[in-house]
Amino acid sequence: MSDTLDLACDLIRRRSVTPDDAGCQRLIQERLEALGFKPEWMRFNDVTNLWARRGDNGPLLAFAGHTDVVPTGPEARWSSPPFEPTIRDGLLYGRGAADMKGSIAAFITALERFVDRHPDHDGSIALLITSDEEGPSVDGTVRVVEVLEQRCEKIDWCLVGEPSSEARVGDIIKNGRRGSLNGRLTVRGRQGHVAYPHKAANPIHLLGPALVELGARHWDDGNEAFPPTTFQISNINGGTGATNVIPGEVDLLFNLRFSTEWTAEQLQAEIVAILDRHQLDYAIDWTVSARPFVTAEGALVEATAGAIKEATGNAPTLSTAGGTSDGRFIAPTGAQVVELGPVNASIHQIDEHVSVSDLDTLSVIYEGVLRRLIAPPSTS
Amino acid sequence: MSDTLDLACDLIRRRSVTPDDAGCQRLIQERLEALGFKPEWMRFNDVTNLWARRGDNGPLLAFAGHTDVVPTGPEARWSSPPFEPTIRDGLLYGRGAADMKGSIAAFITALERFVDRHPDHDGSIALLITSDEEGPSVDGTVRVVEVLEQRCEKIDWCLVGEPSSEARVGDIIKNGRRGSLNGRLTVRGRQGHVAYPHKAANPIHLLGPALVELGARHWDDGNEAFPPTTFQISNINGGTGATNVIPGEVDLLFNLRFSTEWTAEQLQAEIVAILDRHQLDYAIDWTVSARPFVTAEGALVEATAGAIKEATGNAPTLSTAGGTSDGRFIAPTGAQVVELGPVNASIHQIDEHVSVSDLDTLSVIYEGVLRRLIAPPSTS
Ligand SMILES: [Zn+2]
Ligand SMILES: [Zn+2]
Repeated sequence: MSDTLDLACDLIRRRSVTPDDAGCQRLIQERLEALGFKPEWMRFNDVTNLWARRGDNGPLLAFAGHTDVVPTGPEARWSSPPFEPTIRDGLLYGRGAADMKGSIAAFITALERFVDRHPDHDGSIALLITSDEEGPSVDGTVRVVEVLEQRCEKIDWCLVGEPSSEARVGDIIKNGRRGSLNGRLTVRGRQGHVAYPHKAANPIHLLGPALVELGARHWDDGNEAFPPTTFQISNINGGTGATNVIPGEVDLLFNLRFSTEWTAEQLQAEIVAILDRHQLDYAIDWTVSARPFVTAEGALVEATAGAIKEATGNAPTLSTAGGTSDGRFIAPTGAQVVELGPVNASIHQIDEHVSVSDLDTLSVIYEGVLRRLIAPPSTS
Repeated sequence: MSDTLDLACDLIRRRSVTPDDAGCQRLIQERLEALGFKPEWMRFNDVTNLWARRGDNGPLLAFAGHTDVVPTGPEARWSSPPFEPTIRDGLLYGRGAADMKGSIAAFITALERFVDRHPDHDGSIALLITSDEEGPSVDGTVRVVEVLEQRCEKIDWCLVGEPSSEARVGDIIKNGRRGSLNGRLTVRGRQGHVAYPHKAANPIHLLGPALVELGARHWDDGNEAFPPTTFQISNINGGTGATNVIPGEVDLLFNLRFSTEWTAEQLQAEIVAILDRHQLDYAIDWTVSARPFVTAEGALVEATAGAIKEATGNAPTLSTAGGTSDGRFIAPTGAQVVELGPVNASIHQIDEHVSVSDLDTLSVIYEGVLRRLIAPPSTS
């Protein structure tokens, strides 16, 4: 059993359903202290964060990730218990196996080999681990980054271990993420009786043409780094339940995933213009949950791509598709940020799993990134 | 205090919130028995119905109405308690004053004067009173009509005492009612994550163009007897509550109020054609709550218009606008049906009221209808 698999199993056994860390970070801290890292606990409310650094000089390369996992869903539907790591046909099953206890185990074993070979590496290495990535993400990475900024501790390169791979490990590096903008829209009409529609104004009917325009709008073609911006209505609710009452208003929730072709403010202005053009009476609340970021090129992208090519024989593709990640909190500090982790096909699902050999490959890739970026020149 | 006002007050004092008759029909039965009517109780579940007839021959003129009332709403908001009949400035206040205990009182006093003057009238007179008009209307008039049809007892003319008047008593005779068709529509898409819309199919977006077409469609111009057909969506609901999930389906409730230019079946076919043209995947359930009916002309319309002209000096207007009434159950038997009652401005509201002098006018009008239709020729 490889060191990486062994540690991944130890982490999976801990029932760290978000925001509970369940002792995972204690295990990580012990391994890192043995390597000469200086650990710092940063606890906010019920969230546990660990910041551990080795070295005082720049540049600083940080590995980032989370120990919390999403709930299991009905445990009876799992082929083996979600918190009992189980190997079948070369796959390790368990909640968090792919997202992202496997990556964390690979971080640690890569660091152990690297520090053993290069105890006097260039710059510094750090690990940033939170237990609030799958939850509201308000007391996790974003708070650690605040503390670091307050004391002018700057991350130069950040590799986030999120499961970025699609068909095989290392096929995709996420080198950015789209922005995410939420809108809560209320369109107002005038309540009345369905038998007397001329005395009422049906907000569902009034909304119709704007809904069609918003749903059909072509927002952009994307760009080199980003897929096209998308708009989706997730919820619509209007009506009293009675069949004979025209409701006074209708409520919608919608979301845009957007490229760097737009700012959140430009999108808001555009949507307001569409609603105004349809002469609607409405109220709207906005939440910018993420601004888009991208690390188009640079030392980190090159090192990560090189390490993948060396370990797997294949060159990775850069992508910014998919959901949001904690990278959105780190990128605004000016750090280069990439995400690289195992195949994501089973994450958040029943029977989540990761390939055992992929764990070892990942550890080799992470070590390759360390070597390329901070090994002393004479030994790299 | 007039006989009609006196009886209206007695009825209002009884808290007959639908479907509770609260003894109203017992009072009516006693008054009618004294006039030689033969009362029959027809109770179905918790609904009380009274059928009382005087005479064995045709033609049969029936007065129809209901003793149940809608709930009061917050009693504290009434200027005087809703079940304590109170007269202020010539208006009688109380729940049911206008809808329709006032009309029932006017029926009774009109019958008392008419029978006194014409004990040997032509044909027959009947009263059909239910306690289930404001409720689901399944154990009320519709059941009484079934019993009558089973024994081949045929109503020729039916005057329903619903509050038909708008600005002044007798200005409007309702000589029919629109149909009412309810649809419950589910449009199906494919659930997914808002970050991956290409893997999902958003039913709210898919619905948009059909919603616009249905909302904007011109159904007909109405006709001599009917206002134009209308379509209204009363409820729309889709979404899991989560802001990041594209829902799998969206549900709508809609209603059409329709003229005799359409049958319910034609409307259903037209809506199905529109949904199909938009290539939607959907399920739809239909409920025909009323088919349109009209009594365009004939002895009953003439007698009612004549009696109004005689009592008020003004000619009434015929109308089929507004909601549904129990007339929809009586018209299909082949009876001529009109509705005539007090001003409806305050019905179903806080401080419902009726003009005291209108009650007396109504009683005179109802007596005039009796005289025109079934007084013996020598005395009419
Ligand atoms: Zn994750
Ligand atoms: Zn009524």
